[in-house]
Amino acid sequence: MIDPVRPIAIEDIEAARARIAGTVLRTPLVRIDLGDGRDIRLKLENLQPTNAYKIRGGANAVAALSDEQRARGVWTISAGNAGQGVAYAARAFGIPCTVVAIESAPKTKLDRMRALGAKILPVSYEQAWIAAEAHEFAGAEGTFVHPFDSHDFIAGHGTMGLEILEDCPDVGTVICAIGGGGLITGVGSAIKARRPEARVLGAEPETAAPYALSLTKGSPQKFAEWQASFVDGAGGQSVTGRMWLRMQPVVDGAITVTLDQTADAMRLIAEKTRTIAEGAGALSLAAAISDQTLEGPIVGVVSGGNIDLRKFAELIAP
Amino acid sequence: MIDPVRPIAIEDIEAARARIAGTVLRTPLVRIDLGDGRDIRLKLENLQPTNAYKIRGGANAVAALSDEQRARGVWTISAGNAGQGVAYAARAFGIPCTVVAIESAPKTKLDRMRALGAKILPVSYEQAWIAAEAHEFAGAEGTFVHPFDSHDFIAGHGTMGLEILEDCPDVGTVICAIGGGGLITGVGSAIKARRPEARVLGAEPETAAPYALSLTKGSPQKFAEWQASFVDGAGGQSVTGRMWLRMQPVVDGAITVTLDQTADAMRLIAEKTRTIAEGAGALSLAAAISDQTLEGPIVGVVSGGNIDLRKFAELIAP
Repeated sequence: MIDPVRPIAIEDIEAARARIAGTVLRTPLVRIDLGDGRDIRLKLENLQPTNAYKIRGGANAVAALSDEQRARGVWTISAGNAGQGVAYAARAFGIPCTVVAIESAPKTKLDRMRALGAKILPVSYEQAWIAAEAHEFAGAEGTFVHPFDSHDFIAGHGTMGLEILEDCPDVGTVICAIGGGGLITGVGSAIKARRPEARVLGAEPETAAPYALSLTKGSPQKFAEWQASFVDGAGGQSVTGRMWLRMQPVVDGAITVTLDQTADAMRLIAEKTRTIAEGAGALSLAAAISDQTLEGPIVGVVSGGNIDLRKFAELIAP
Repeated sequence: MIDPVRPIAIEDIEAARARIAGTVLRTPLVRIDLGDGRDIRLKLENLQPTNAYKIRGGANAVAALSDEQRARGVWTISAGNAGQGVAYAARAFGIPCTVVAIESAPKTKLDRMRALGAKILPVSYEQAWIAAEAHEFAGAEGTFVHPFDSHDFIAGHGTMGLEILEDCPDVGTVICAIGGGGLITGVGSAIKARRPEARVLGAEPETAAPYALSLTKGSPQKFAEWQASFVDGAGGQSVTGRMWLRMQPVVDGAITVTLDQTADAMRLIAEKTRTIAEGAGALSLAAAISDQTLEGPIVGVVSGGNIDLRKFAELIAP
């Protein structure tokens, strides 16, 4: 029933770009001067209409459905950002959207999904992860749009890679946060197609780093010591077998960062770019700072900015 | 000694655009959905490398100097953002920069000018305003680059108008904060040249609204009840005769907003765009919200984001 994994072709990414052009913001790539002479640039996906990159995949996946599939409405599984991306696209098509949502997600994210007209089915983190692995959830109605293990969703994220190459043709290293693995697979597929010599690296928090563990073991792993944190938009409980197959051809390695490094990166992003990054959105910069040997120019994707403002205020001005 | 006022021709703005292309960010124009059905978009100049639009004018004015003028170094007068813009351009040319700076400016702004290598001459708000009107200050060395009453500085700001028209060709209303008047003159000159039917409006805080007063009186006025506030990047003590001549042909009116409306707009910008606006940067949105009769699409310029983060945190999450 589930489509077999296949490579995300550059033609699929180009088709996605045309499909989502009217919905998605072409985000700026901004230099961040840390005073160490390194060329680090941030792709500000926190500026998207839903304030997270997931709108790229959501818009492409919903637009790529057949009329019949779309007419049944759509449902997805989300910690908050994918749900907004799919709900935004569903609203544009005038179809219903249901989100199987992690009930501990920040209020900002849950409120925003509701504001976009989504029906929320609250579940635990574990239940959501089981549904994501199984590609099913009892009680959800309509056509399923997987939030990361979906060819069209990932092709949508790949459009970001095309923009990065336009703005920084000589990029040396691209860093993306890893949650499910859809972001890095999409961006990595575009980068490797057009500039194979650039390195593509994942970033995970120490509390949820199954991809780094999987690389060490050479096979997809569950991260037994998984802990919840303010980095709620990245860091999975495991790497699924299918996502391992997707990521391996286009990812060169992974960097694990501490929660303190992540909070420091959030502060730096606020100070230098004057934008609000959520924890997951700051992982790439934290990773870039933690490894001084990376080849420049370094591009870090700021994946999203959906953090409760009070929590953000506490983190940047304690 | 001072060049006579002349219109900012569209050719001057186009020349500026070519001159500053490598220095300035082409900023995004983002929709902000307030749930009232109005089409309001924000031009995010707070994303510039200096986190304020003044880099456009500073980069153009310094680049347009003769080699001989530049070799003497440059100086300007600033509440913080113009100084950063000129210092950024001076650093790129490897020439010294002095800023006659208002000593009560936010620490963020003073620190950033110093970090760009500028020498700071601290003065009171009144002294700075006298120097700006006189185009001179005893003790400042090098070639003077006026922070608003300068043809090349204003032409640099005009480049923003070209970008607005590219991203929103059918714009109905453009709103810019007024401090000295350079921003609105530049943007207004581009808009009126290319889309004369669009309205160009100024926004001022109730504590410093000399342009609205001048419009009422029909001549340039001093604002006797001027008060300092967190809106430190806009709101002048007076409209100078020269700036009155510059603004009149390209500005259609002015909106005065309260400090509370401005703080509310800062919160909305944080919530909806996930960016940090300083007080002056939120005036345009506050003005757009305060007048429900404005013709859409409405574009508000978010002029800058240089506010101390602790102050910002207090304002958005009290």
